[in-house]
Amino acid sequence: MAAPIDFYFDFSSPYGYFASTKIEAMAAKYGREVNWRPFLLGVAMKITGGAPLPSVPMKGDYARRDFARSAAYYGVDYKLPSVFPIASQAPARAFYWLRQKDPNQAKSLAAALYRAYFVDDINISNPEDTVAVCAKFGLEPDEVRSAINDAAIKDLVKTEVDRAIARGAFGSPYIVVDGEAFWGADRLAQLEKWLASGGWKY
Amino acid sequence: MAAPIDFYFDFSSPYGYFASTKIEAMAAKYGREVNWRPFLLGVAMKITGGAPLPSVPMKGDYARRDFARSAAYYGVDYKLPSVFPIASQAPARAFYWLRQKDPNQAKSLAAALYRAYFVDDINISNPEDTVAVCAKFGLEPDEVRSAINDAAIKDLVKTEVDRAIARGAFGSPYIVVDGEAFWGADRLAQLEKWLASGGWKY
Repeated sequence: MAAPIDFYFDFSSPYGYFASTKIEAMAAKYGREVNWRPFLLGVAMKITGGAPLPSVPMKGDYARRDFARSAAYYGVDYKLPSVFPIASQAPARAFYWLRQKDPNQAKSLAAALYRAYFVDDINISNPEDTVAVCAKFGLEPDEVRSAINDAAIKDLVKTEVDRAIARGAFGSPYIVVDGEAFWGADRLAQLEKWLASGGWKY
Repeated sequence: MAAPIDFYFDFSSPYGYFASTKIEAMAAKYGREVNWRPFLLGVAMKITGGAPLPSVPMKGDYARRDFARSAAYYGVDYKLPSVFPIASQAPARAFYWLRQKDPNQAKSLAAALYRAYFVDDINISNPEDTVAVCAKFGLEPDEVRSAINDAAIKDLVKTEVDRAIARGAFGSPYIVVDGEAFWGADRLAQLEKWLASGGWKY
Protein backbone atom coordinates (compact mmCIF):
# COMPACT_ATOMS: atom_id res chain seq x y z
CA MET A 1 0.00 0.00 0.00
CA ALA A 2 1.18 3.54 -0.76
CA ALA A 3 2.44 5.77 2.07
CA PRO A 4 -0.16 7.13 4.49
CA ILE A 5 -1.42 10.70 4.58
CA ASP A 6 -0.54 12.76 7.66
CA PHE A 7 -3.45 14.99 8.58
CA TYR A 8 -2.45 17.75 11.01
CA PHE A 9 -5.25 19.84 12.47
CA ASP A 10 -6.25 21.92 15.47
CA PHE A 11 -9.57 21.11 17.17
CA SER A 12 -10.29 24.86 17.17
CA SER A 13 -9.94 25.21 13.38
CA PRO A 14 -13.08 25.39 11.19
CA TYR A 15 -11.06 24.58 8.08
CA GLY A 16 -9.54 21.59 9.89
CA TYR A 17 -13.06 20.47 10.73
CA PHE A 18 -14.25 20.83 7.12
CA ALA A 19 -11.27 18.81 5.85
CA SER A 20 -11.81 16.16 8.52
CA THR A 21 -15.22 15.35 7.02
CA LYS A 22 -13.71 14.70 3.57
CA ILE A 23 -10.26 13.23 3.97
CA GLU A 24 -11.05 9.60 4.85
CA ALA A 25 -13.26 9.09 1.80
CA MET A 26 -10.72 10.75 -0.46
CA ALA A 27 -7.84 8.69 0.92
CA ALA A 28 -9.80 5.44 0.66
CA LYS A 29 -10.58 6.18 -3.00
CA TYR A 30 -6.84 6.15 -3.73
CA GLY A 31 -5.89 3.33 -1.38
CA ARG A 32 -4.26 5.47 1.29
CA GLU A 33 -4.50 5.44 5.08
CA VAL A 34 -4.81 8.66 7.07
CA ASN A 35 -2.92 9.41 10.28
CA TRP A 36 -4.92 11.96 12.25
CA ARG A 37 -2.54 14.22 14.17
CA PRO A 38 -4.16 17.01 16.18
CA PHE A 39 -1.71 19.73 17.18
CA LEU A 40 -1.81 23.19 18.73
CA LEU A 41 -1.84 26.01 16.23
CA GLY A 42 -0.96 28.54 18.93
CA VAL A 43 2.49 26.99 19.29
CA ALA A 44 3.11 27.32 15.54
CA MET A 45 1.87 30.92 15.60
CA LYS A 46 4.63 31.80 18.05
CA ILE A 47 7.04 30.94 15.21
CA THR A 48 5.14 32.43 12.27
CA GLY A 49 3.99 35.55 14.13
CA GLY A 50 0.44 34.65 13.15
CA ALA A 51 -2.65 35.38 15.19
CA PRO A 52 -6.09 33.76 15.34
CA LEU A 53 -8.10 35.00 12.34
CA PRO A 54 -10.95 36.60 14.29
CA SER A 55 -8.51 38.91 16.09
CA VAL A 56 -6.79 40.21 12.94
CA PRO A 57 -8.02 43.63 11.74
CA MET A 58 -9.97 43.39 8.44
CA LYS A 59 -9.42 39.62 8.20
CA GLY A 60 -11.62 38.83 11.21
CA ASP A 61 -14.95 39.91 9.70
CA TYR A 62 -14.09 38.27 6.42
CA ALA A 63 -13.10 35.03 8.15
CA ARG A 64 -16.42 34.68 9.95
CA ARG A 65 -18.31 34.93 6.64
CA ASP A 66 -15.83 32.64 4.90
CA PHE A 67 -16.24 29.95 7.58
CA ALA A 68 -20.02 29.88 7.03
CA ARG A 69 -19.84 30.14 3.26
CA SER A 70 -17.14 27.47 2.98
CA ALA A 71 -19.19 25.14 5.21
CA ALA A 72 -22.13 25.57 2.83
CA TYR A 73 -19.83 25.10 -0.17
CA TYR A 74 -18.47 21.82 1.23
CA GLY A 75 -21.94 20.73 2.44
CA VAL A 76 -20.86 20.44 6.07
CA ASP A 77 -23.01 21.21 9.15
CA TYR A 78 -21.53 24.23 10.91
CA LYS A 79 -22.34 26.96 13.40
CA LEU A 80 -19.80 29.51 14.66
CA PRO A 81 -19.20 28.45 18.29
CA SER A 82 -20.13 30.98 21.02
CA VAL A 83 -16.53 30.84 22.25
CA PHE A 84 -14.05 30.94 19.35
CA PRO A 85 -11.20 30.25 18.99
CA ILE A 86 -10.34 27.99 21.92
CA ALA A 87 -7.29 26.30 23.40
CA SER A 88 -7.50 22.66 22.37
CA GLN A 89 -5.30 20.80 24.83
CA ALA A 90 -8.17 18.83 26.39
CA PRO A 91 -9.51 17.26 23.18
CA ALA A 92 -5.95 16.68 21.91
CA ARG A 93 -5.06 14.80 25.09
CA ALA A 94 -8.22 12.69 24.95
CA PHE A 95 -7.44 11.89 21.33
CA TYR A 96 -3.81 10.80 21.84
CA TRP A 97 -4.73 8.80 24.94
CA LEU A 98 -7.32 6.82 22.99
CA ARG A 99 -5.03 6.55 19.96
CA GLN A 100 -2.54 4.53 22.01
CA LYS A 101 -5.28 1.96 22.52
CA ASP A 102 -7.20 2.13 19.25
CA PRO A 103 -6.19 4.48 16.39
CA ASN A 104 -9.40 3.96 14.44
CA GLN A 105 -11.62 4.63 17.42
CA ALA A 106 -9.54 7.75 18.10
CA LYS A 107 -10.40 9.06 14.63
CA SER A 108 -14.09 8.58 15.32
CA LEU A 109 -13.67 10.37 18.62
CA ALA A 110 -11.95 13.29 16.84
CA ALA A 111 -14.93 13.53 14.49
CA ALA A 112 -17.29 13.54 17.49
CA LEU A 113 -15.26 16.24 19.25
CA TYR A 114 -15.19 18.41 16.12
CA ARG A 115 -18.95 17.98 15.72
CA ALA A 116 -19.56 18.82 19.39
CA TYR A 117 -17.66 22.08 18.97
CA PHE A 118 -18.70 23.20 15.48
CA VAL A 119 -22.28 21.92 15.39
CA ASP A 120 -23.51 21.60 18.98
CA ASP A 121 -21.57 24.59 20.37
CA ILE A 122 -19.97 22.60 23.20
CA ASN A 123 -16.81 24.31 24.42
CA ILE A 124 -14.40 21.38 24.32
CA SER A 125 -11.57 23.52 25.70
CA ASN A 126 -13.17 22.80 29.09
CA PRO A 127 -11.86 19.41 30.20
CA GLU A 128 -15.27 18.48 31.66
CA ASP A 129 -16.97 19.22 28.33
CA THR A 130 -14.45 17.03 26.52
CA VAL A 131 -15.09 14.33 29.16
CA ALA A 132 -18.85 14.63 28.50
CA VAL A 133 -18.38 14.26 24.74
CA CYS A 134 -16.16 11.20 25.34
CA ALA A 135 -18.77 9.73 27.72
CA LYS A 136 -21.50 10.12 25.10
CA PHE A 137 -19.09 8.42 22.68
CA GLY A 138 -18.97 5.43 25.03
CA LEU A 139 -15.76 5.99 26.98
CA GLU A 140 -15.50 5.78 30.76
CA PRO A 141 -15.61 9.39 32.12
CA ASP A 142 -13.16 8.75 34.96
CA GLU A 143 -10.62 7.22 32.60
CA VAL A 144 -10.83 10.21 30.24
CA ARG A 145 -10.59 12.65 33.15
CA SER A 146 -7.45 10.91 34.41
CA ALA A 147 -5.95 10.85 30.94
CA ILE A 148 -6.46 14.60 30.44
CA ASN A 149 -4.60 15.21 33.71
CA ASP A 150 -1.92 12.57 33.17
CA ALA A 151 1.61 14.00 32.91
CA ALA A 152 2.60 11.27 30.43
CA ILE A 153 -0.31 12.18 28.12
CA LYS A 154 0.52 15.87 28.43
CA ASP A 155 4.10 15.03 27.38
CA LEU A 156 2.84 12.90 24.52
CA VAL A 157 0.80 15.83 23.19
CA LYS A 158 3.78 18.16 23.52
CA THR A 159 5.92 15.69 21.58
CA GLU A 160 3.28 15.39 18.85
CA VAL A 161 2.98 19.18 18.60
CA ASP A 162 6.76 19.52 18.30
CA ARG A 163 6.82 16.82 15.62
CA ALA A 164 4.03 18.55 13.68
CA ILE A 165 5.91 21.84 13.73
CA ALA A 166 9.18 20.14 12.78
CA ARG A 167 7.24 18.70 9.83
CA GLY A 168 6.28 22.25 8.78
CA ALA A 169 2.70 22.48 10.06
CA PHE A 170 1.99 26.20 10.47
CA GLY A 171 -1.76 26.12 9.75
CA SER A 172 -4.79 23.86 9.98
CA PRO A 173 -5.42 21.65 8.17
CA TYR A 174 -1.86 20.85 7.06
CA ILE A 175 -1.76 17.63 5.10
CA VAL A 176 1.46 15.85 4.08
CA VAL A 177 1.70 12.94 1.67
CA ASP A 178 4.79 11.59 -0.12
CA GLY A 179 6.70 14.61 1.26
CA GLU A 180 4.27 17.09 -0.35
CA ALA A 181 2.39 19.52 1.91
CA PHE A 182 -1.09 20.93 1.37
CA TRP A 183 -2.33 23.74 3.60
CA GLY A 184 -6.03 24.46 3.93
CA ALA A 185 -9.35 22.80 3.19
CA ASP A 186 -9.16 24.73 -0.08
CA ARG A 187 -6.21 22.57 -1.16
CA LEU A 188 -8.19 19.29 -1.01
CA ALA A 189 -8.69 19.47 -4.78
CA GLN A 190 -4.92 19.73 -5.31
CA LEU A 191 -4.39 16.89 -2.81
CA GLU A 192 -6.82 14.78 -4.82
CA LYS A 193 -4.97 15.57 -8.04
CA TRP A 194 -1.75 14.49 -6.29
CA LEU A 195 -3.31 11.21 -5.12
CA ALA A 196 -4.97 10.49 -8.46
CA SER A 197 -1.76 10.98 -10.43
CA GLY A 198 0.49 9.22 -7.93
CA GLY A 199 2.78 12.23 -7.53
CA TRP A 200 1.80 14.88 -10.06
CA LYS A 201 4.85 16.68 -11.51
CA TYR A 202 4.31 20.43 -11.56
CA MET B 1 -27.00 44.24 -16.41
CA ALA B 2 -26.17 42.96 -12.93
CA ALA B 3 -23.66 44.89 -10.78
CA PRO B 4 -20.02 44.70 -11.80
CA ILE B 5 -17.34 42.68 -10.02
CA ASP B 6 -14.58 44.63 -8.27
CA PHE B 7 -11.29 42.82 -8.68
CA TYR B 8 -8.62 44.09 -6.27
CA PHE B 9 -5.10 42.81 -6.76
CA ASP B 10 -1.44 43.66 -6.26
CA PHE B 11 0.89 43.37 -9.25
CA SER B 12 3.32 41.52 -6.98
CA SER B 13 0.82 38.79 -6.05
CA PRO B 14 1.01 35.37 -7.76
CA TYR B 15 -2.51 34.51 -6.64
CA GLY B 16 -3.73 37.84 -8.03
CA TYR B 17 -2.04 36.94 -11.31
CA PHE B 18 -3.64 33.48 -11.41
CA ALA B 19 -7.10 34.99 -10.76
CA SER B 20 -6.52 37.69 -13.40
CA THR B 21 -6.29 35.00 -16.08
CA LYS B 22 -9.69 33.56 -15.14
CA ILE B 23 -11.95 36.35 -13.99
CA GLU B 24 -13.00 37.95 -17.28
CA ALA B 25 -14.22 34.68 -18.79
CA MET B 26 -16.08 33.78 -15.60
CA ALA B 27 -17.72 37.19 -15.36
CA ALA B 28 -18.73 37.16 -19.03
CA LYS B 29 -20.36 33.76 -18.59
CA TYR B 30 -22.73 35.31 -16.04
CA GLY B 31 -23.20 38.68 -17.74
CA ARG B 32 -21.01 40.70 -15.40
CA GLU B 33 -18.40 43.37 -16.01
CA VAL B 34 -15.13 43.41 -14.07
CA ASN B 35 -13.51 46.54 -12.63
CA TRP B 36 -9.78 45.88 -12.31
CA ARG B 37 -8.44 47.72 -9.29
CA PRO B 38 -4.73 47.24 -8.55
CA PHE B 39 -3.78 48.27 -5.03
CA LEU B 40 -0.76 48.04 -2.74
CA LEU B 41 -0.85 45.09 -0.39
CA GLY B 42 1.92 46.57 1.75
CA VAL B 43 -0.41 49.37 2.85
CA ALA B 44 -3.05 46.83 3.95
CA MET B 45 -0.39 44.79 5.76
CA LYS B 46 0.37 47.77 7.98
CA ILE B 47 -3.20 47.37 9.28
CA THR B 48 -3.40 43.58 9.43
CA GLY B 49 0.14 43.08 10.74
CA GLY B 50 0.74 40.73 7.84
CA ALA B 51 4.05 40.23 6.08
CA PRO B 52 4.97 39.05 2.58
CA LEU B 53 4.65 35.25 2.51
CA PRO B 54 8.27 34.49 1.56
CA SER B 55 9.54 36.26 4.68
CA VAL B 56 7.29 34.40 7.13
CA PRO B 57 9.01 31.52 8.96
CA MET B 58 7.65 28.11 7.90
CA LYS B 59 5.11 29.69 5.50
CA GLY B 60 7.76 30.99 3.09
CA ASP B 61 9.01 27.63 1.86
CA TYR B 62 5.48 26.31 1.61
CA ALA B 63 4.34 29.39 -0.33
CA ARG B 64 7.01 29.01 -3.01
CA ARG B 65 5.87 25.43 -3.69
CA ASP B 66 2.22 26.40 -3.53
CA PHE B 67 2.70 29.19 -6.09
CA ALA B 68 4.17 26.72 -8.60
CA ARG B 69 1.71 23.94 -7.85
CA SER B 70 -1.30 26.27 -7.99
CA ALA B 71 -0.10 27.68 -11.32
CA ALA B 72 0.02 24.14 -12.70
CA TYR B 73 -3.38 23.37 -11.16
CA TYR B 74 -4.94 26.43 -12.83
CA GLY B 75 -3.03 25.81 -16.06
CA VAL B 76 -1.29 29.19 -16.00
CA ASP B 77 2.26 29.96 -17.21
CA TYR B 78 4.38 30.91 -14.21
CA LYS B 79 7.96 31.25 -13.03
CA LEU B 80 8.96 32.59 -9.61
CA PRO B 81 10.50 35.99 -10.40
CA SER B 82 14.18 36.52 -9.46
CA VAL B 83 13.14 39.47 -7.31
CA PHE B 84 10.03 38.68 -5.27
CA PRO B 85 7.98 40.27 -3.81
CA ILE B 86 8.28 43.77 -5.25
CA ALA B 87 6.80 47.22 -4.64
CA SER B 88 4.19 47.76 -7.34
CA GLN B 89 3.71 51.52 -7.53
CA ALA B 90 5.10 51.84 -11.07
CA PRO B 91 2.75 49.34 -12.75
CA ALA B 92 -0.20 50.60 -10.64
CA ARG B 93 0.44 54.17 -11.81
CA ALA B 94 0.75 53.12 -15.45
CA PHE B 95 -2.51 51.21 -15.12
CA TYR B 96 -4.56 54.00 -13.54
CA TRP B 97 -3.14 56.55 -15.97
CA LEU B 98 -4.26 54.45 -18.95
CA ARG B 99 -7.57 53.60 -17.27
CA GLN B 100 -8.57 57.27 -17.34
CA LYS B 101 -8.29 57.12 -21.10
CA ASP B 102 -9.42 53.58 -21.88
CA PRO B 103 -10.53 51.14 -19.15
CA ASN B 104 -10.53 48.11 -21.45
CA GLN B 105 -7.06 48.81 -22.78
CA ALA B 106 -5.91 49.26 -19.17
CA LYS B 107 -7.09 45.71 -18.38
CA SER B 108 -5.06 44.36 -21.29
CA LEU B 109 -2.05 46.32 -20.07
CA ALA B 110 -2.49 44.84 -16.57
CA ALA B 111 -2.45 41.36 -18.10
CA ALA B 112 0.73 42.26 -20.03
CA LEU B 113 2.40 43.63 -16.87
CA TYR B 114 1.49 40.51 -14.87
CA ARG B 115 2.86 38.31 -17.64
CA ALA B 116 6.06 40.34 -17.85
CA TYR B 117 6.64 39.83 -14.14
CA PHE B 118 5.47 36.25 -13.61
CA VAL B 119 6.46 34.69 -16.93
CA ASP B 120 9.29 36.77 -18.41
CA ASP B 121 10.92 37.72 -15.07
CA ILE B 122 10.91 41.45 -15.78
CA ASN B 123 11.12 43.45 -12.55
CA ILE B 124 8.22 45.86 -13.11
CA SER B 125 8.93 47.61 -9.80
CA ASN B 126 11.57 49.49 -11.78
CA PRO B 127 9.81 52.37 -13.55
CA GLU B 128 11.94 51.88 -16.66
CA ASP B 129 10.98 48.22 -16.87
CA THR B 130 7.31 49.13 -16.61
CA VAL B 131 7.88 51.75 -19.31
CA ALA B 132 9.47 49.09 -21.52
CA VAL B 133 6.51 46.70 -21.04
CA CYS B 134 4.13 49.56 -21.89
CA ALA B 135 6.18 50.42 -24.98
CA LYS B 136 6.02 46.84 -26.20
CA PHE B 137 2.27 47.06 -25.56
CA GLY B 138 2.12 50.01 -27.97
CA LEU B 139 2.15 53.02 -25.64
CA GLU B 140 4.41 56.02 -26.05
CA PRO B 141 7.38 55.57 -23.63
CA ASP B 142 7.70 59.26 -22.80
CA GLU B 143 4.02 59.52 -21.95
CA VAL B 144 4.20 56.52 -19.63
CA ARG B 145 7.38 57.85 -18.01
CA SER B 146 5.71 61.20 -17.35
CA ALA B 147 2.59 59.52 -15.99
CA ILE B 148 4.60 57.41 -13.51
CA ASN B 149 6.21 60.59 -12.19
CA ASP B 150 3.05 62.71 -12.29
CA ALA B 151 1.92 63.94 -8.86
CA ALA B 152 -1.74 63.72 -9.91
CA ILE B 153 -1.34 60.05 -10.92
CA LYS B 154 0.49 59.31 -7.69
CA ASP B 155 -2.43 60.84 -5.79
CA LEU B 156 -4.92 58.88 -7.86
CA VAL B 157 -3.16 55.62 -6.92
CA LYS B 158 -3.13 56.62 -3.24
CA THR B 159 -6.87 57.34 -3.42
CA GLU B 160 -7.54 53.99 -5.08
CA VAL B 161 -5.46 52.15 -2.47
CA ASP B 162 -7.35 53.90 0.33
CA ARG B 163 -10.67 52.99 -1.29
CA ALA B 164 -9.62 49.36 -1.68
CA ILE B 165 -8.69 49.16 1.98
CA ALA B 166 -11.88 50.93 3.04
CA ARG B 167 -13.70 48.26 1.05
CA GLY B 168 -11.95 45.57 3.13
CA ALA B 169 -9.20 44.42 0.76
CA PHE B 170 -6.49 42.89 2.96
CA GLY B 171 -5.16 40.32 0.51
CA SER B 172 -4.74 39.67 -3.20
CA PRO B 173 -6.88 38.86 -5.04
CA TYR B 174 -9.82 40.32 -3.13
CA ILE B 175 -12.97 40.17 -5.20
CA VAL B 176 -16.23 41.91 -4.26
CA VAL B 177 -19.58 41.40 -5.96
CA ASP B 178 -23.05 42.32 -4.67
CA GLY B 179 -21.42 43.22 -1.34
CA GLU B 180 -19.92 39.73 -0.96
CA ALA B 181 -16.12 39.40 -0.68
CA PHE B 182 -13.96 36.52 -1.90
CA TRP B 183 -10.28 36.39 -0.91
CA GLY B 184 -7.84 34.29 -2.89
CA ALA B 185 -7.61 32.57 -6.25
CA ASP B 186 -8.81 29.51 -4.33
CA ARG B 187 -12.21 31.21 -3.81
CA LEU B 188 -12.93 31.46 -7.56
CA ALA B 189 -15.11 28.35 -7.33
CA GLN B 190 -17.18 29.95 -4.56
CA LEU B 191 -17.36 33.18 -6.59
CA GLU B 192 -18.67 31.18 -9.53
CA LYS B 193 -21.29 29.54 -7.33
CA TRP B 194 -22.33 33.03 -6.19
CA LEU B 195 -22.60 34.29 -9.79
CA ALA B 196 -24.41 31.19 -11.02
CA SER B 197 -27.05 31.33 -8.30
CA GLY B 198 -27.45 35.10 -8.38
CA GLY B 199 -26.67 35.51 -4.69
CA TRP B 200 -26.39 32.07 -3.12
CA LYS B 201 -27.87 32.00 0.41
CA TYR B 202 -25.58 30.22 2.81
